[in-house]
Amino acid sequence: MTAKDIAVPYQEIAAAKRQSLLDNIPKEWILESIPSEKEVPNVCEYLDKFLPEEEVAITSSTVLKLADKISKGELTASNVTKAFCHRTALVHQMTSCCAEIFFDRAFHKAKELDEYYAKYGKTIGPLHGIPISLKDQFNLEGLDSAIGYISLLNKPFPKEQESVLADILSSAGAIFFVKTTVPTAMMAGDTVSNIYGYTKNSINRKLSCGGSSGGEGCLIGARGALLGFGTDIGGSVRIPSAFQGIYGLRPSSHRITYRNVTNSYCNQPVMVSVIGPMAQDLEDIKFIFKFIVESKQYLRDPKVPPIPYREVSLKPTDKLCFGIMKWNKYIMPHPPILRAIETAKTALLKAGHEVVEWEPPVSHLDLLNLASAIFGADNCKEMLNECAKSGEPLIKEDIALCGGKAGGPSISIEEHWEQAGLRYKYQQIYDDFWLSTKTLTTTGRPIDGLISPSWETCSFKSGDFPKLTTMYTSVFNVLDYSVVVTPITKVDKKIDLINNSYKPINEMDKFTHEYYDPELFDGTPVTLQVVAPRYQEEKALFLSSTLTNALKLNLEEK
Amino acid sequence: MTAKDIAVPYQEIAAAKRQSLLDNIPKEWILESIPSEKEVPNVCEYLDKFLPEEEVAITSSTVLKLADKISKGELTASNVTKAFCHRTALVHQMTSCCAEIFFDRAFHKAKELDEYYAKYGKTIGPLHGIPISLKDQFNLEGLDSAIGYISLLNKPFPKEQESVLADILSSAGAIFFVKTTVPTAMMAGDTVSNIYGYTKNSINRKLSCGGSSGGEGCLIGARGALLGFGTDIGGSVRIPSAFQGIYGLRPSSHRITYRNVTNSYCNQPVMVSVIGPMAQDLEDIKFIFKFIVESKQYLRDPKVPPIPYREVSLKPTDKLCFGIMKWNKYIMPHPPILRAIETAKTALLKAGHEVVEWEPPVSHLDLLNLASAIFGADNCKEMLNECAKSGEPLIKEDIALCGGKAGGPSISIEEHWEQAGLRYKYQQIYDDFWLSTKTLTTTGRPIDGLISPSWETCSFKSGDFPKLTTMYTSVFNVLDYSVVVTPITKVDKKIDLINNSYKPINEMDKFTHEYYDPELFDGTPVTLQVVAPRYQEEKALFLSSTLTNALKLNLEEK
Repeated sequence: MTAKDIAVPYQEIAAAKRQSLLDNIPKEWILESIPSEKEVPNVCEYLDKFLPEEEVAITSSTVLKLADKISKGELTASNVTKAFCHRTALVHQMTSCCAEIFFDRAFHKAKELDEYYAKYGKTIGPLHGIPISLKDQFNLEGLDSAIGYISLLNKPFPKEQESVLADILSSAGAIFFVKTTVPTAMMAGDTVSNIYGYTKNSINRKLSCGGSSGGEGCLIGARGALLGFGTDIGGSVRIPSAFQGIYGLRPSSHRITYRNVTNSYCNQPVMVSVIGPMAQDLEDIKFIFKFIVESKQYLRDPKVPPIPYREVSLKPTDKLCFGIMKWNKYIMPHPPILRAIETAKTALLKAGHEVVEWEPPVSHLDLLNLASAIFGADNCKEMLNECAKSGEPLIKEDIALCGGKAGGPSISIEEHWEQAGLRYKYQQIYDDFWLSTKTLTTTGRPIDGLISPSWETCSFKSGDFPKLTTMYTSVFNVLDYSVVVTPITKVDKKIDLINNSYKPINEMDKFTHEYYDPELFDGTPVTLQVVAPRYQEEKALFLSSTLTNALKLNLEEK
Repeated sequence: MTAKDIAVPYQEIAAAKRQSLLDNIPKEWILESIPSEKEVPNVCEYLDKFLPEEEVAITSSTVLKLADKISKGELTASNVTKAFCHRTALVHQMTSCCAEIFFDRAFHKAKELDEYYAKYGKTIGPLHGIPISLKDQFNLEGLDSAIGYISLLNKPFPKEQESVLADILSSAGAIFFVKTTVPTAMMAGDTVSNIYGYTKNSINRKLSCGGSSGGEGCLIGARGALLGFGTDIGGSVRIPSAFQGIYGLRPSSHRITYRNVTNSYCNQPVMVSVIGPMAQDLEDIKFIFKFIVESKQYLRDPKVPPIPYREVSLKPTDKLCFGIMKWNKYIMPHPPILRAIETAKTALLKAGHEVVEWEPPVSHLDLLNLASAIFGADNCKEMLNECAKSGEPLIKEDIALCGGKAGGPSISIEEHWEQAGLRYKYQQIYDDFWLSTKTLTTTGRPIDGLISPSWETCSFKSGDFPKLTTMYTSVFNVLDYSVVVTPITKVDKKIDLINNSYKPINEMDKFTHEYYDPELFDGTPVTLQVVAPRYQEEKALFLSSTLTNALKLNLEEK
């Protein structure tokens, strides 16, 4: 299709969509002017002062606490929903984080739930009245799942194609009110599209919110929602969680049902995207993960293996051993991230745990290259074809993640099978090595978990994603491990100085080293990945708790 | 490579391999002459008369009983091993079912186990002294895994590449003594190769033993082993189990570790081969399946999901409801199979269970076509290339399973991804329909299991595999369901007459109808598939027990 075949310029379709979002916000919530990034870098802090006290109290709570209050009649679903819709309306205007806004529907459901509660004196389920945000790709009745493509706008889904996960949450009383932005096709670690433009980091608006679940990260970072769902095939849950300093779980393949969730390369079988919860509070993630696993989703999705929820048998007082990977031997993380590693190490040791240095048994560059080769198996053909339908250009961020090539033939099935074989080989080597660490610990077990930087930087500037890599996140997609992004600290320009004595070991390392700017990054969150083996989500969450508690203990002592 | 590049004609390499097998059999066990198929159709019956009484007693037992006797010191590992080796040596000479024979190694291990028992007064593990046969593809130290290819002969595996499953079994005391024949590349439902020739059915030597785990089916059918392992990507555990009238479990994907097991298309990710136990006794299969699942294989194989062994919560006295699929609407099974369906139905009803007719919610022809398209994704290129290395021709049976085409380009990755999507769609439709049967039963549950013919015929004559289809088995590979082949009866030429009034509905149905020959098939076993949903192996085994017990009860009453 050429430009002349296209009836309406894509820019017009996009502008209409953006306007329709604003039209769905009550007029009294429309900001007269948007403060600049310099005036207000941190949306969350700003809104805590801007919004009514009772709404701030609600949005500063946790899912579990709100659910408890609602169940006791101390809060109504309508109160809670209004507080989050209001806050979200403002976050969206300051960051462009929403892909769909449907507050009316949310208010309607909240009212129904309140009526149910009034009538029966009990909640409809454990998520009664809890607003949950969803990445754009979750199909909901009557709404688009455009995943950043102009061509997929104005194609609302019917009821029978609703996401199974959405139905599980909704049946338990969850209230959906927005879907959040993604980069076109969701094949990038930044969030930009020809529909919604650029989504800003809600904690430091001068920087990227990450991607591809960038709208989720941004919204939850600013407490426009306390809990939401992203997806991750190369870091897409973890990057935005890291950049906004929230918790994000990347489970192993198919642990959470993906049925009826729109996706790019939806049938590519070698390495798949997974759904993961993102939240302000770790206990909320634990709760929702357990709830989903126990919902018998495997009866509704052929791809979900019936692995039960398994409580971790270790006691919180048991001594654990963590592997610590300060860097991946290719790209040195920025100074605040190295400080976070030291902070975590010190806190764990003080809490009585053990740490050992982690030497990757496989080159992480090889793992990254495999991931890129899988993402780039068709040289962006599917994305280019979908873009051609509307005449929009493909964003450069997608091309970067897919190995930097667009156009040209797809690889052969034989090459694709080789990729599958290589992935399995790497997994074997990594798993075998993990088991072998039994000889390195004093616990009688292999290391319990691995701690790694989430990313080499704490974010980046608009347009710079192609200059960086997803090595720190993608390796765990190749291995299919369970990972929890865990907040540690914030960049402090006074402490986290440029390390002038560091000698970069390659061009990428040099670029990254020189990219660090304490002034720019000041106040940006710093997180680490807490990693457990495949299908050990319960353990990864337990270890993230252990680290979080150790950090608290350490702070209290100081 | 052309014929002139090949130093040694493949026929010579094959003849040397066949001779080496005979050389590994003690001279006193070499038969002076092999009785004809007409004289001795049934190897098992023949050997029960031919062999010493004490050996017949051992080979007529079960794994659980033998293990019990060994643990009490009533039998030694050496006694047991000798009995099975002797019997196997004869079965092999009468059927050509062994691909590797290594009795010496078995005797050596048996001796070690007996010494261990003598010293410590206990067994080394639950499989202490139990001979187990393995399909050729299981890698064992110092032996080939040629999977029927001349080119892969004389390439023994090193210790570190031994099959993980073999190691799990061996560590528990199992004794390996043979590996069994497969068709070249294992992509056929018959067992023929340029190395070993044709493997005959051990219950009716005039017919096929099935495939691709044909050597296993043949050997276990004749009680040369009581338990062994095959693999199944289109019916390869079930067809030989059916043709020899033994139990065979086809588990869902990756439920049993495939690590370090040689395979064709080993990295093809859309629909994978699975390992399943085959045995004379159902309790032995239940025992070994539980043992493997509880061995923490997931720590040693990245592909194994950590699904625990789950006892079926139903009581044996609970009323169950079975869906019964008499035929698949395309090919009417032969009269003895229809009789088996009626026998099963009557027995279940008499035992107090419920049956409902099963109408497939998806055309089984569509499911078969998808399976064939996946098998034929590269138009046999891998097989042709491997055959070219030795100059051997590819067997027509492989070409038949792969959609009948050899040569020509592979499909594109986009087409392969479409296959993956189509498979997922079919699984969704089938699963949803299964759940919906709750309205058809009086148990308050959907149907507990599905009963289907194992195959449209009870076997076939050498060379006829390409004229038939694998529709009855392949559908459950596409769906990835758990299936237990369950013996029901034997063909009785006096009862199972040709149905002259049947009007075939298509050409394949006509061919199959006319293929029935009561005289030829007389005495051949008749089995049915007992099917439970994906990852419900425990349930499928429970249902197979239910059916087996109902049949016994019915027989006793008569």
